[in-house]
Amino acid sequence: MLGPVALRRPGRLAPLPSSAARLDPASFLGAWQELNATATIQHCVDNIERTGVIDNLRRLTPGGPDVPFRGPWFADSDLYKTLEAIGWEIGRSGTGQWSHLLSEVADLLEQVQEADGYLNTYVQGTPGEEPFAQPERTHELYCAGHLMQAAVALHRGSGDERFLTVARRAADMIVKDFGGDGRPVIDGHAEVETALVELCRETGEPAYLEAARLQIERRGQRTLPPGRFDSIYYQDHLPVREATEALGHAVRQLYLAAGVTDVYLESGDETLLDAQRQLWDSAFRTKMFVTGGHGSRHRDESYGDPYELPPDRAYAETCASIAALQWCWRMLLATGEARYAEEMERTLLNAIAASTSHTGTAFFYSNPLQLRTGHEGSTEDAPSERLSWYKCACCPPNIARLLASVHSYAATADGTGLQLHLLTAGTFTGPALSATVQTGYPWDGDLVVTATGSGELAVRVPAWADGATVTVTGGELLAGPTPGEYLRVSCSDGATVHLSLPMTPRLVRADERADAVRGCVSVHRGPLVYCVEQADLPAGILVEQLRLAPSATVIDEVPDDGVTPVRLRLTGVARRPDTDLYAPYDPARATEDTPVSFTAIPYHSWANRGPGAMRVWLPLA
Amino acid sequence: MLGPVALRRPGRLAPLPSSAARLDPASFLGAWQELNATATIQHCVDNIERTGVIDNLRRLTPGGPDVPFRGPWFADSDLYKTLEAIGWEIGRSGTGQWSHLLSEVADLLEQVQEADGYLNTYVQGTPGEEPFAQPERTHELYCAGHLMQAAVALHRGSGDERFLTVARRAADMIVKDFGGDGRPVIDGHAEVETALVELCRETGEPAYLEAARLQIERRGQRTLPPGRFDSIYYQDHLPVREATEALGHAVRQLYLAAGVTDVYLESGDETLLDAQRQLWDSAFRTKMFVTGGHGSRHRDESYGDPYELPPDRAYAETCASIAALQWCWRMLLATGEARYAEEMERTLLNAIAASTSHTGTAFFYSNPLQLRTGHEGSTEDAPSERLSWYKCACCPPNIARLLASVHSYAATADGTGLQLHLLTAGTFTGPALSATVQTGYPWDGDLVVTATGSGELAVRVPAWADGATVTVTGGELLAGPTPGEYLRVSCSDGATVHLSLPMTPRLVRADERADAVRGCVSVHRGPLVYCVEQADLPAGILVEQLRLAPSATVIDEVPDDGVTPVRLRLTGVARRPDTDLYAPYDPARATEDTPVSFTAIPYHSWANRGPGAMRVWLPLA
Repeated sequence: MLGPVALRRPGRLAPLPSSAARLDPASFLGAWQELNATATIQHCVDNIERTGVIDNLRRLTPGGPDVPFRGPWFADSDLYKTLEAIGWEIGRSGTGQWSHLLSEVADLLEQVQEADGYLNTYVQGTPGEEPFAQPERTHELYCAGHLMQAAVALHRGSGDERFLTVARRAADMIVKDFGGDGRPVIDGHAEVETALVELCRETGEPAYLEAARLQIERRGQRTLPPGRFDSIYYQDHLPVREATEALGHAVRQLYLAAGVTDVYLESGDETLLDAQRQLWDSAFRTKMFVTGGHGSRHRDESYGDPYELPPDRAYAETCASIAALQWCWRMLLATGEARYAEEMERTLLNAIAASTSHTGTAFFYSNPLQLRTGHEGSTEDAPSERLSWYKCACCPPNIARLLASVHSYAATADGTGLQLHLLTAGTFTGPALSATVQTGYPWDGDLVVTATGSGELAVRVPAWADGATVTVTGGELLAGPTPGEYLRVSCSDGATVHLSLPMTPRLVRADERADAVRGCVSVHRGPLVYCVEQADLPAGILVEQLRLAPSATVIDEVPDDGVTPVRLRLTGVARRPDTDLYAPYDPARATEDTPVSFTAIPYHSWANRGPGAMRVWLPLA
Repeated sequence: MLGPVALRRPGRLAPLPSSAARLDPASFLGAWQELNATATIQHCVDNIERTGVIDNLRRLTPGGPDVPFRGPWFADSDLYKTLEAIGWEIGRSGTGQWSHLLSEVADLLEQVQEADGYLNTYVQGTPGEEPFAQPERTHELYCAGHLMQAAVALHRGSGDERFLTVARRAADMIVKDFGGDGRPVIDGHAEVETALVELCRETGEPAYLEAARLQIERRGQRTLPPGRFDSIYYQDHLPVREATEALGHAVRQLYLAAGVTDVYLESGDETLLDAQRQLWDSAFRTKMFVTGGHGSRHRDESYGDPYELPPDRAYAETCASIAALQWCWRMLLATGEARYAEEMERTLLNAIAASTSHTGTAFFYSNPLQLRTGHEGSTEDAPSERLSWYKCACCPPNIARLLASVHSYAATADGTGLQLHLLTAGTFTGPALSATVQTGYPWDGDLVVTATGSGELAVRVPAWADGATVTVTGGELLAGPTPGEYLRVSCSDGATVHLSLPMTPRLVRADERADAVRGCVSVHRGPLVYCVEQADLPAGILVEQLRLAPSATVIDEVPDDGVTPVRLRLTGVARRPDTDLYAPYDPARATEDTPVSFTAIPYHSWANRGPGAMRVWLPLA
């Protein structure tokens, strides 16, 4: 979520304050947010304590424990992301659950922060390390950025000034040391850019925006020394206005893009927006998995070539999808275009939702679209099930901070009206127009929006919603409903808008250049991608044997089983497996097919019943 | 190549001495071997000098240069592999070209080797390193193994005793320190196992075989501490008799398998052979690329799951194919079964041949089966063209040592007859029966074998050679020709066997579980896999647009262009690219196809005309 954006231009949207948005706790997003509040955040707190991240601070204080530094060099950021989650959660629910933790950590940060504002437990606590000596590696600005984001969240959520003061001192050091006349340091991992802009929004201090601007202007000059990784990995290969292909480490790429877009939002430099539009097309129109995952390669956790989209080796890091959502949000604010909200929804309800178990305490780091029978899943790299925690624990607290603030991404509003982007039950309060949304979405396609006040109500109609209909009472339909655009209604107080989206299951194909899914379709219902899991197949049939009939159009819905409101029943065949890895091609080859019907579940629910084979893309017979 | 195997059992084959095999220099393999002799070996020598590998020795001698250690910790092995290539080349051609180098290096090794036989320039030359303190990382036994292999080659090739003495001292230290009562050290990278067995064969010292046996018996106990890599990476997760799925780092897996098979060959422990048969089926029947490449993942250079065979991200390291060939050779000697020779040929003429440029001085490390339009090829990991050298330079000298000895893999012989495994023009001299082979294979399918002496001649008939015919003069046909088996002829002196293999181009499909190539075929002619390169397409048509007609059976041959004796002319269509990454599936969707014919070239020739898109697997329309 973003603070108020200073510069306003036509087409731009204004974020709502956190308190102006409420999700219905019975809604999909609302229930997930409650699970986050009751399970995930505390799980992060427990694991951050367990893995020594807070001890990394304590050991640097007088009388602190005599223990070694633990975790990766960017471990501080896991703490900061958890603090950020707590900050948003306080703002949302007013919880006092973590007061003691906050107090202790504020004490620790104040003690450990150096006089010049420097604060990094890895560098400060490791003999031989010097501040900013190896910015390509040490993530110091990255960690500082997460500190700033945490401080902004805590300040907005609880009015806390202690974290904000620490964060401002860190930011002031960046302004002083790396300002226009200072050392041109950039970080190997973009992140500080959005944080500095947010800190500017929160404090009104323009120097932070300028520091963010310098960060993005300095990137792409190949100043980060290539070592184990090359310039592309860090997005340091081309200036941001020329780097229009999504390349390198996916999370870095997407955080950087969010930062560039944030600088655009506050500076109005259209050359930045132009470049980000092109970059977005590269990322979302040639390199994105159908679940909204980003990053095709395990090696270097990076983007691949265009259309290199392997379902089995999809890296699709959870953090990359979160970063993608953050970037799309900023592009949405900048342009008001529905495509950006559409992709927020895709990644949120599929790739990101899949990352978290039904318990809220186990997580995927990588989110593949296929797991084979016989998968060797003993490593953190490609586990067969969600893990409680990771040695590199960036993803779980990232989920926590996103979910604690997810209500803020649902709507925007200004003096003329209100815009609904994420379709969810809840209440959204704008300065002129407020709305209560009643819906069982994403399971149900009916949305009833009741307006309070008056103004223009915009409701995003998903691009897949061919045949959407609308009934307006007490208002005037201005536009739509057109798939992929906003339905617009001029509302009087008490007006109701009943939008009905067709929820018939659909089959989706990929561009033929996506070789890895040639001859396959994926099954969708509303915004949800479905998958087939081994657990749902008849005995003796493996996921790899399934083939859908080419004309498969009838898909039955299976009633709520208490876990999944809507499962789908597909018909096809089980094909006898081949016996030779390579064999002569015979166009008249007979296959041995046995008719079979089988259940598909939402992709985000997979691997909650033990390990097993799974696939999103199903071959046609 | 192997020395004489001590234990003989039914079905076993006996290697020929290097001098008993001669390739026709006009043959495919012979010409490549000449290129290796005139270009590749010297290129390796030059680059080993340039990159400091020899300086790593010099700096450890009195009066040596005051320079730092350079290269990776296993840099010694690059020198040893080059020495091994020189040893085989001396044995083959008697060249004196590298006499000065050999003399200097022998001097250096004698000076640097410690009193106890220890010799490793990285550990000896790096403060803080201790011998065998971190065997999972330091490759000390791996490097010692390559030293032994080099010494064996030089001893066989030139009678050199100096390298053999150094190598024996290194091996004696292994026997003493890591013998039955010693420390149970194994190396993170298998390699020393085959080397110790070969050194046993060369010297007759059974302690070296026992040391090799201990190495394989100790593996799989999870004694190597998992750090950045896990036990599976090192094949230390299961004892070799239980580890029947090909897993982990592909080169390590394949070198280990060759070592286990070598211990079987000398010990006769059938439990080892049984396990290697199962492991071989896993590697070659579920995880091998159609080019004979091994290793599906860039991450950790490792095997993937069964049927995880992405053409674009095929890692298919050159060294893995070389290791696969070495393992197949040992399985062939152990069993006499044609399948092992078949796979030697596949990898040699496709994956390995593709690794080297037409100049003999540029190399692929990874050998993908597809390169996309727009591929970002600036990294060593996935370059668009062969590179002159690599920071991790394992592959080029591995190619050099293989090619200098490749004639030795073509045939076996004993007192009863001669067996031809690699079909190539040349002369092969057995104790009872010798043969001269005249053929233009792999371009031409006619082989004329003329026998000298008498005995049983066996000629491998490739598995693809349906319709092969034979004419025998002066001998008696005993069996065949049956595809995938050995043609057997009882020959009198002067007998001729004329084997005719059908060279009609063929289309090959993969097991449907190989999702990444669903709906595609590869084009083969004889043992060669073909590919389509952008350079051969009409202007305005991209490789990604090509579709073969499903009934495509007529493939025309294109005459010799001076570079490639046989190119193929395929007919199909160019399909208008899709416009949406994801779109509703429509079974009746019309495609815009334009008829097109295009040329395919042997896969091993790709990327010799500049960078550009390429694919082996072609989609059917």
